[in-house]
Amino acid sequence: MPPRRCTAPATLQTSSDSDDLEDFIMRCLSCEEEYDADDAGTCKECYQEANEAEEELRHEIEELKAKLSFLALPSPLLNPSTGDLVLLPADDSSAVPIPAHKHILVSRSPVFKAMLENDMTESRSGTIKISDVSYDTLRAFVDYLYTAEASLDNQMACNLLALGEKYQVKHLKTYCEKYLIAKMNWDKAIANYAFAYQYNCKQLLNAALAVILDNMDCLTQNEYYAELVDSHPRLVVEIYETYLVRQLNTAGAFRLQDQS
Amino acid sequence: MPPRRCTAPATLQTSSDSDDLEDFIMRCLSCEEEYDADDAGTCKECYQEANEAEEELRHEIEELKAKLSFLALPSPLLNPSTGDLVLLPADDSSAVPIPAHKHILVSRSPVFKAMLENDMTESRSGTIKISDVSYDTLRAFVDYLYTAEASLDNQMACNLLALGEKYQVKHLKTYCEKYLIAKMNWDKAIANYAFAYQYNCKQLLNAALAVILDNMDCLTQNEYYAELVDSHPRLVVEIYETYLVRQLNTAGAFRLQDQS
Repeated sequence: MPPRRCTAPATLQTSSDSDDLEDFIMRCLSCEEEYDADDAGTCKECYQEANEAEEELRHEIEELKAKLSFLALPSPLLNPSTGDLVLLPADDSSAVPIPAHKHILVSRSPVFKAMLENDMTESRSGTIKISDVSYDTLRAFVDYLYTAEASLDNQMACNLLALGEKYQVKHLKTYCEKYLIAKMNWDKAIANYAFAYQYNCKQLLNAALAVILDNMDCLTQNEYYAELVDSHPRLVVEIYETYLVRQLNTAGAFRLQDQS
Repeated sequence: MPPRRCTAPATLQTSSDSDDLEDFIMRCLSCEEEYDADDAGTCKECYQEANEAEEELRHEIEELKAKLSFLALPSPLLNPSTGDLVLLPADDSSAVPIPAHKHILVSRSPVFKAMLENDMTESRSGTIKISDVSYDTLRAFVDYLYTAEASLDNQMACNLLALGEKYQVKHLKTYCEKYLIAKMNWDKAIANYAFAYQYNCKQLLNAALAVILDNMDCLTQNEYYAELVDSHPRLVVEIYETYLVRQLNTAGAFRLQDQS
C-alpha cells in the first residue's frame, strides 16, 4: 500500500495497517514535496533561521551593489578634457592619447604611484608610454581602473592580466584569472599552464594542470605540447613529475585496498 | 516513556510500545538537536541546496567587497596637492580649504556636475563655497564622495543627509537615513519626523511616525511637541489624522469580531 498523501506541510502520516517507518511521510516546507524519515533534513526552526539568514545576505548584496554603483567612475574617455595626463601604446605612434587622472592611477597601482609621485619622465611630461600593448588593451586597462569592469574574451583576459601583473593591479589580475579558469578546456590547458607560470597565477596554474592530468593520454598530441617542450621544458617535467606522484599514490591506495 | 535518543543524524526512531507520532524523533542536520514530526522543516535535498546557495551568496559578498575595496579612493585630504579645486564652508573664512578633484565631484553629484561643467564662478575660480555647513561636516562630506564611508553620530547623520539632499548625492542620503532609522527612539521621534519631512525622507518619516503612534499617550508631553506645533502645525495634524484612521479601523475590526 503506498503512503497516504498529507495535505498540511510538515505533518506526519502513517498508513493504518503498518508500522514501517517508510510509511511515515512528511512534506518539505521548502520544495513542498513529500519525503520520508531517511530523507529528513532540518527542523522547522533551522529552516526558518536559514530563510532569514538568506534574506539578510541578499539584502547585504543589494547594499554592496548600490555602494559599488556609487563608487564606480565613468570612463575618462567619456570626458577627456578633465584628465591631467595621457597614456599611449609605445609601439603605436598614431594612437589617440588615452586621458586619465593622476590620482586615480596612483590609487590603483603601486607602480603608477612610484612613477607619478616621484620626479620621473612620465610625471614631468604627463605622458605614460606603455610597451607591448595594443590601443584596445590599453583603453580597456584604463577603463578598468575607473569602473572595475571589462568586456573579456580569452585574448583580452590574457592581455589585461599581463598589465595587471606589470602594474600590480591585483584586482584586475584576479578578475582575468577567474575568467580564464571559467573558460578552461583541454584546447586551452597547455597554453594557460605556460601563461599562468609566466604571470605567477597559482589558481590558473592548478586549474590548467588538473585538466592536463586528466588528459595525459593525448598530451603529446596537443598542438601546444611541442611548443611548451621547446619554450619551458622544466614546466613539462613538472607535469610528468606530478603525474608520476599521482600514479604512485593511486597504486599505493590499490595495494592497501587489496591487503585489507 | 520519553523518546529514545538516536545517534545518527536525521534518522527516525520509535519507542517499541507506542505508535504515538510524538515518539518519532529525528535529528536536525543543521543544529543537530532532536525534533519530532510536528517540528519538521525541510527534506535533506533542500537542506543541501540551501547550504550551497548560502555558500554562493557569501562568495558573491566577498567578491563585491574586494571590488569595493578596489574602487574606493583615498580621501583627497591625504594628498592635497593632487586636487584641482577646493571646497570651503562659506561662513568660516579661517577654515583650511578642503582639496578635491573636479571629475570626482562631477561624477558623484548632478549639482556639482551642472556647476562645474558650465562656466560658473566656482568652475572659473576653482573654489566652491558651501553655506550652512561646519568645517567638520564638509570634510566628512568630501571624504564620503571618495570612500562611500562616514563616521556618523546623530548630528553628523542629519548634517550629511542635508548635504546629500542639497547636492543630490542619493547614496549618502540613504546611508544617513538608514543610520537615523536604526537609532530611532521616542526621544528622537518627533525631531526625526520633522527632519524627514523637511528633507523628503519617506522611510525615516514612516519609521518616526510609527514610534509616535505607539506613544500617543505621552505625545503632548514630548519636549519637541510644542516646537513642532509652532513650526509645522500641518505635520502635527497629519499625526492626529493617521492616529484617528488607525483608531477607527481598530474599532471597526472589533465590531466585526463581535458580530461574528
